[in-house]
Amino acid sequence: MKFVIIGGDAAGMSAASRARRLDPQIEVMVLEQTLDVSYSACGMPYNIADAKRSIEDLVVRRAEVFRQKQGIDLRTGRCVERIDPASGTVSGSDTNGQPFQEAYDQLLIATGAAALRPDLPGFSLPGVMVLKSLDQGRRIKTFLKERSVRQVVIIGMGYVALEMAESLRALGIGVAMVKPRPAFLPWMPEEMARLVLDEVHANDVRTHAGQAVTSIEMTAGTRPSLTVHCEQTDLAADMVLVAVGVSPNSALAAAAGLELSVGRSIAVDRRMRTSAANIYAAGDCADAYHVVSGRKTWIPLALRANRAGWAVADNVCGKLTELQGVAGTAVFRVFGLQVARTGLTEREARTCGFEPVPVVIKTRSRAHAHPGASDIWVHMLADKPSGRLLGVQMVGREGVAHRINAPAVALHNGMTVEQYAQCDLAYAPPFGPTWDPTLTAANQILKKL
Amino acid sequence: MKFVIIGGDAAGMSAASRARRLDPQIEVMVLEQTLDVSYSACGMPYNIADAKRSIEDLVVRRAEVFRQKQGIDLRTGRCVERIDPASGTVSGSDTNGQPFQEAYDQLLIATGAAALRPDLPGFSLPGVMVLKSLDQGRRIKTFLKERSVRQVVIIGMGYVALEMAESLRALGIGVAMVKPRPAFLPWMPEEMARLVLDEVHANDVRTHAGQAVTSIEMTAGTRPSLTVHCEQTDLAADMVLVAVGVSPNSALAAAAGLELSVGRSIAVDRRMRTSAANIYAAGDCADAYHVVSGRKTWIPLALRANRAGWAVADNVCGKLTELQGVAGTAVFRVFGLQVARTGLTEREARTCGFEPVPVVIKTRSRAHAHPGASDIWVHMLADKPSGRLLGVQMVGREGVAHRINAPAVALHNGMTVEQYAQCDLAYAPPFGPTWDPTLTAANQILKKL
Repeated sequence: MKFVIIGGDAAGMSAASRARRLDPQIEVMVLEQTLDVSYSACGMPYNIADAKRSIEDLVVRRAEVFRQKQGIDLRTGRCVERIDPASGTVSGSDTNGQPFQEAYDQLLIATGAAALRPDLPGFSLPGVMVLKSLDQGRRIKTFLKERSVRQVVIIGMGYVALEMAESLRALGIGVAMVKPRPAFLPWMPEEMARLVLDEVHANDVRTHAGQAVTSIEMTAGTRPSLTVHCEQTDLAADMVLVAVGVSPNSALAAAAGLELSVGRSIAVDRRMRTSAANIYAAGDCADAYHVVSGRKTWIPLALRANRAGWAVADNVCGKLTELQGVAGTAVFRVFGLQVARTGLTEREARTCGFEPVPVVIKTRSRAHAHPGASDIWVHMLADKPSGRLLGVQMVGREGVAHRINAPAVALHNGMTVEQYAQCDLAYAPPFGPTWDPTLTAANQILKKL
Repeated sequence: MKFVIIGGDAAGMSAASRARRLDPQIEVMVLEQTLDVSYSACGMPYNIADAKRSIEDLVVRRAEVFRQKQGIDLRTGRCVERIDPASGTVSGSDTNGQPFQEAYDQLLIATGAAALRPDLPGFSLPGVMVLKSLDQGRRIKTFLKERSVRQVVIIGMGYVALEMAESLRALGIGVAMVKPRPAFLPWMPEEMARLVLDEVHANDVRTHAGQAVTSIEMTAGTRPSLTVHCEQTDLAADMVLVAVGVSPNSALAAAAGLELSVGRSIAVDRRMRTSAANIYAAGDCADAYHVVSGRKTWIPLALRANRAGWAVADNVCGKLTELQGVAGTAVFRVFGLQVARTGLTEREARTCGFEPVPVVIKTRSRAHAHPGASDIWVHMLADKPSGRLLGVQMVGREGVAHRINAPAVALHNGMTVEQYAQCDLAYAPPFGPTWDPTLTAANQILKKL
């Protein structure tokens, strides 16, 4: 049996490795467009912040290891251009322009997602960067080093934009951020988003929210050489980072007639099967069920990509595996703050037919009278008629990142807030108050239900 | 209606405050033996470590606030000596030896637990301390200050003993620890307990495990003045801390004919009712159901005390409330290490009729290639026939304290390890690997089921 995988990052290589382990008889072939496989994409902002480390440190396992130690037929520089479900073949061309064609018994599409690059004047100029693939990270790191960049404009204020703002400030580079919508972190309650914005400003990052970028212009020979034209202002930069989101690489699947889903991601069932026989999809290109709403969603995150890759390998090897779905649990660091979320936002909850009751509470990161404490803010949402927990968001200087996981597990179990409020969570004075912040939020929301 | 509460700490004052809030018509009387109410007992080791802070900082709310702002009839220095369920009265004497008697409609026994003090020669000498009540903490702090203590022997190696070892070392005091049983943290897998012991030794604390103490002797006029005689050695000390555990203050309840339970704690149902009509018990003196085994257990911890106090107030005020039970979730700090647990130990699991399959894994506290990472060790237990998650223990320098809460919530939901392994937990490079350490443990244990 021949198992062909398109894409050699998280989902693709997880599937390849596991299929090999489960069934040594299977022929496992990976076709990767770039020369990079199996790297920690999420680690790029932190690596870029450290001039002494090589970007190649982010490679988790080298291509030779997959080939020689694991016996995976890993082919890099192979761009798949067409999937033909009728004949069970994929075809494309290699880096030399030579065409290839491969037959498959089972196919996995693990093409990931790509950074969006708006179709506006100047967005393809040299020095205008995006960050999603390792090669894009490599280019940014090289550019920063070779051009002795002093000023960067970041377009976008999502988590990649914020992580990169922190990285660039760590390198002593001036940062300005701009985005078209006026609200900063619009998925978060305003008072909590304000805390994050204050932290960004406290680290000397200027922000310009509510301003669309109209074009980018280059003036040869001047420093800085780039001008980002916005609706009401112009921002000068040595480099521009476009971090306005990502989009699933689903064109190949769409052209083959496969069903698409939320945000043009590839529709898969709980076993990661697409609408075509013997074709699976996994990772940032595929959709998922949301455990709270039960509806399809598209949340490209690393853990899901790894897990979905494994599930595909299981199913390909005859070990039937279904995935429960995602809760949208995520955490990111913004300078000294930890920002975390799980479940639905208030707007999402309403869209999904819930009647969300919100609460925002402020508590402390350590026990009463324990020194060194800082504030922890918790936003919690419950459904009024059912009392069900719908989502939690947190901001704080410590004790946020791993705390989000307890309500995430609660969401997987469909717990009500009343049930969650009874959970026996850990307490010791250096690590939190007697009532965990998420329990305090639950106690408060119970009064409103 | 008159609601009388015996004991003015966590459970007692939680019940008093909530009953007052729920029903302003109710008469709420608290009879507290000491002069201290509502303090953070768990904070004592950390307060003692800081000579600049007063032990009184640990008082969460002063008696006058309860009396004047909340209208609670709080009477300190009242030692209840007898409960008469037949007549519905409690009686005792105050600090001046004056007798008192009070009738109750509803009674809460919240007498807490007391530090064990073995009945051996010299265990009542001046300078031989225990630590459970605020007054005992006050005595230790005063003694350390006035006697310029240079050497302390701690009898016991449980979490209070370890927290106090850290405190005393922070004050520059030499510490030796001794305990009769040879195993250090016997509830933990040996390789993980060893890490904690190494940390203790690395902080210049000497340990003598497997040695029973036979007596303590005082030599007047010498420095140090105390000698702790052990089976094979003698240890000199200016002060001795006896930290060999606590025992529920249930004698009053037993004398009144109330049913006792595990470890002589007071037996209560899910509504905190004792075996006698109109008498509740809550806090460190009362038992609880364990959410994993369904059996009665006695785990005196602060969160449960607060929660049980609230549940009693609810029930007294006619809002019927049942508590799910406890998972035995706990965390403590040992110098630079965080040590956490939830659920059953392997021995407990076997006793409760499970067939525990254990796994111990080592992973990292941050993502691949992220600097500053340290090891995180996870021990996980699953039941072989059912696949159910039974317990988790963790040790590490960071990222342990709050991570234990996710498996704790899983235990409340009776999740299998397979279900837990599917949970969507947070990931960002500064805070952990893509697969949360508890998920890695779950993935490993699945191979053994």
